[in-house]
Amino acid sequence: MAAQRILTGIKPSGTPHLGNYAGAIRPAVEASRRADAESFYFLADYHALISTTDPVRVQRSTLEIAATWLAAGLDADRVWFYRQSDIPEIPELTWLLTCVAGKGLLNRAHAYKAAVDKNNADGEDPDAGVNMGLFMYPVLMAADILMFKAHSVPVGRDQIQHIEMARDIAARFNHLYGEHFVLPEAAIDEAVATLPGLDGRKMSKSYDNVIPLFAKPAELKKLVFSILTDSRLPGEPKETEGSALFQLYQAFASADETEAMRTAFAEGIAWGEAKQAVFEYIERAVAPMRERYEALIAQPAQIEQKLLEGAEKARAIATPFLADLRHAVGLRRLDALVTPTVQARPKSQALPQFKQYREADGRFYFKLVDGEGRLLLQSRGFDSPKEAGQSVARIKQGETIEGLAELGEGVDIAQLGEALAAFAAE
Amino acid sequence: MAAQRILTGIKPSGTPHLGNYAGAIRPAVEASRRADAESFYFLADYHALISTTDPVRVQRSTLEIAATWLAAGLDADRVWFYRQSDIPEIPELTWLLTCVAGKGLLNRAHAYKAAVDKNNADGEDPDAGVNMGLFMYPVLMAADILMFKAHSVPVGRDQIQHIEMARDIAARFNHLYGEHFVLPEAAIDEAVATLPGLDGRKMSKSYDNVIPLFAKPAELKKLVFSILTDSRLPGEPKETEGSALFQLYQAFASADETEAMRTAFAEGIAWGEAKQAVFEYIERAVAPMRERYEALIAQPAQIEQKLLEGAEKARAIATPFLADLRHAVGLRRLDALVTPTVQARPKSQALPQFKQYREADGRFYFKLVDGEGRLLLQSRGFDSPKEAGQSVARIKQGETIEGLAELGEGVDIAQLGEALAAFAAE
Repeated sequence: MAAQRILTGIKPSGTPHLGNYAGAIRPAVEASRRADAESFYFLADYHALISTTDPVRVQRSTLEIAATWLAAGLDADRVWFYRQSDIPEIPELTWLLTCVAGKGLLNRAHAYKAAVDKNNADGEDPDAGVNMGLFMYPVLMAADILMFKAHSVPVGRDQIQHIEMARDIAARFNHLYGEHFVLPEAAIDEAVATLPGLDGRKMSKSYDNVIPLFAKPAELKKLVFSILTDSRLPGEPKETEGSALFQLYQAFASADETEAMRTAFAEGIAWGEAKQAVFEYIERAVAPMRERYEALIAQPAQIEQKLLEGAEKARAIATPFLADLRHAVGLRRLDALVTPTVQARPKSQALPQFKQYREADGRFYFKLVDGEGRLLLQSRGFDSPKEAGQSVARIKQGETIEGLAELGEGVDIAQLGEALAAFAAE
Repeated sequence: MAAQRILTGIKPSGTPHLGNYAGAIRPAVEASRRADAESFYFLADYHALISTTDPVRVQRSTLEIAATWLAAGLDADRVWFYRQSDIPEIPELTWLLTCVAGKGLLNRAHAYKAAVDKNNADGEDPDAGVNMGLFMYPVLMAADILMFKAHSVPVGRDQIQHIEMARDIAARFNHLYGEHFVLPEAAIDEAVATLPGLDGRKMSKSYDNVIPLFAKPAELKKLVFSILTDSRLPGEPKETEGSALFQLYQAFASADETEAMRTAFAEGIAWGEAKQAVFEYIERAVAPMRERYEALIAQPAQIEQKLLEGAEKARAIATPFLADLRHAVGLRRLDALVTPTVQARPKSQALPQFKQYREADGRFYFKLVDGEGRLLLQSRGFDSPKEAGQSVARIKQGETIEGLAELGEGVDIAQLGEALAAFAAE
């Protein structure tokens, strides 16, 4: 069985904080080490253009986020790690999918609807200030996922709908043009940690309560010591439940260490002492990463190089797959056309023939044999003779054989094309 | 002055008829011979995917339409003649434009609104059966036009709105990212002939009254003889006004020949005789083209080759221009980043400086000089010191200098980057 493919998009925006690390980066880097999976990570810079028009910010964030993931232990040689905008097949696939995506589907996207709701509440035109990037986002995301036949896409709950849309678009394409795409599944990890911020609410840029992942030790210490606590004195037992400090400790300590801290809380550890411990544990985890990060960010050419290598690796998949898809929709070389203008072969030469039959398994099959009886094409089993017959008709019309039949041994696609041309010339 | 650029998109759908030839192909081929213009003609196969899901039809139509234009005298060596789907820069530019196109703009597109009106009239959901290709069509068309900085786009009245949308999208991009795009103009040729069909109405596939451009002589004759006339007998004077036969004659005869036929009508030419003349004149014009067409269509590999050469010629423009546009929006190499992490230069070394000043022309300027007083950057004139100052700020932040200033003599962009890095490192 082929390895499970897991694909993760990383939007290059802003400076990552401890919450991003514990909630997204760390688990993803761990998952990338699984032996049974092929992991794809990409910097979604085309997506970034939807929400910012500041070019320097796009570039700088791409650098910072790439350096962050590498510093956090992502092994670019083991996984596929690339920048979206290095894969020209992505925007091209986006157009092919645009032509099969229903507008009604996109009308229902949460992010778009939220923008409309806000405009309505403000008494504005429903689409005021909405750019087409926001509206088309789910189609681009479908292209990101379908391009690499990803089975599984780890996402937050707010992104489930986008995966469903990618499935919907893929199914529609498959229905029209044959089975080309894998239908992806959203993978929701319920166990993923949500870290509290300085004020006890979820750590988030929008609450302005974050601890930057690569804050220098002095700043890190200052921020940890500013975490909100209650006013219990040293010696008074303290609650771990609901304590931001305890949750941060837990996120960076082992299970044993966490239990020891739980006891210390019960025994009345002083807040200052607990904060010092939290600072030390975070620093212990972060220090080597920060060092790698600083070394990486000082050498942008090295990161650029890694991304270009990653793009090459990704395009080794994307380029031939897009060629198949282009063929499927009809963007084909003109000299490969199965056309009535092809020279009819001499009448004396026996023509290739489609033969339909039923096997012992009760299913219906067809095969294509040439004038000498050589097997050119062997179908899979169909539930009804009608289905088999329709497949023959589709293949005669030059549609893809994918999902319907396979080439006979030693037969190449050019030989098949030649045989099919004979039907067109009939 | 640079040559005027004229761009014409050709949708590969269906078999061309005499009306297409006289109304579109013939005038465009004539225009392509103008010495003062650079003409771009492309087969819009990405557009074809919006309205058909039949791959063989897409491929066959592309071949037939390419052969038609070449047979009609388009000189592929003189103009830019290419297939849209051979230019991967087009879908990529489409995405960049998608991120600046307002959704409200596209809501107003006639073709989309017509589909909505029809759904509403049928009691359907407004977007029933509408694919995103139809909705996004104006953005793709904008990319087609803007990619080649076309000044002029010859279109029918129904397409004027699309050109206006391309202007709107281009202006918005220019506003956000600097002056990159030429704003195109719609060119409406009021004099273009509309040929009548067999029944006297406009020749159109939807009226089923067409004469195929490359009908064989026998079929052509049969069709011409089936053109509707009144019942006047030989010898009775006949009206040229409103006569489909006369208009067809006129479209393929010289001015002198047309005058002679007008006289013949007045003198009571028999309908059969007039039809014979019309057939002969059309056949005279069409026969050499039909011969070329048949030769071309039998050699699809030659057409394929011409299109690939055309694509190469078009990409010689598209590839570097897209590189500029990618840079403008922030899709940049990471090692070219102007970033605070760049090493600060030794304090002893004099830093580059921006200097603002006013010239004798009353306008406000700035320049950037390095520690040794060498001119790195020279601005254009601005109307106010505020504008000049804002431009300095934008350049310091790493935005493009295009439209604001030019590099000093012998200065390259890398040297400018280094100088700007000094500001970032301050």
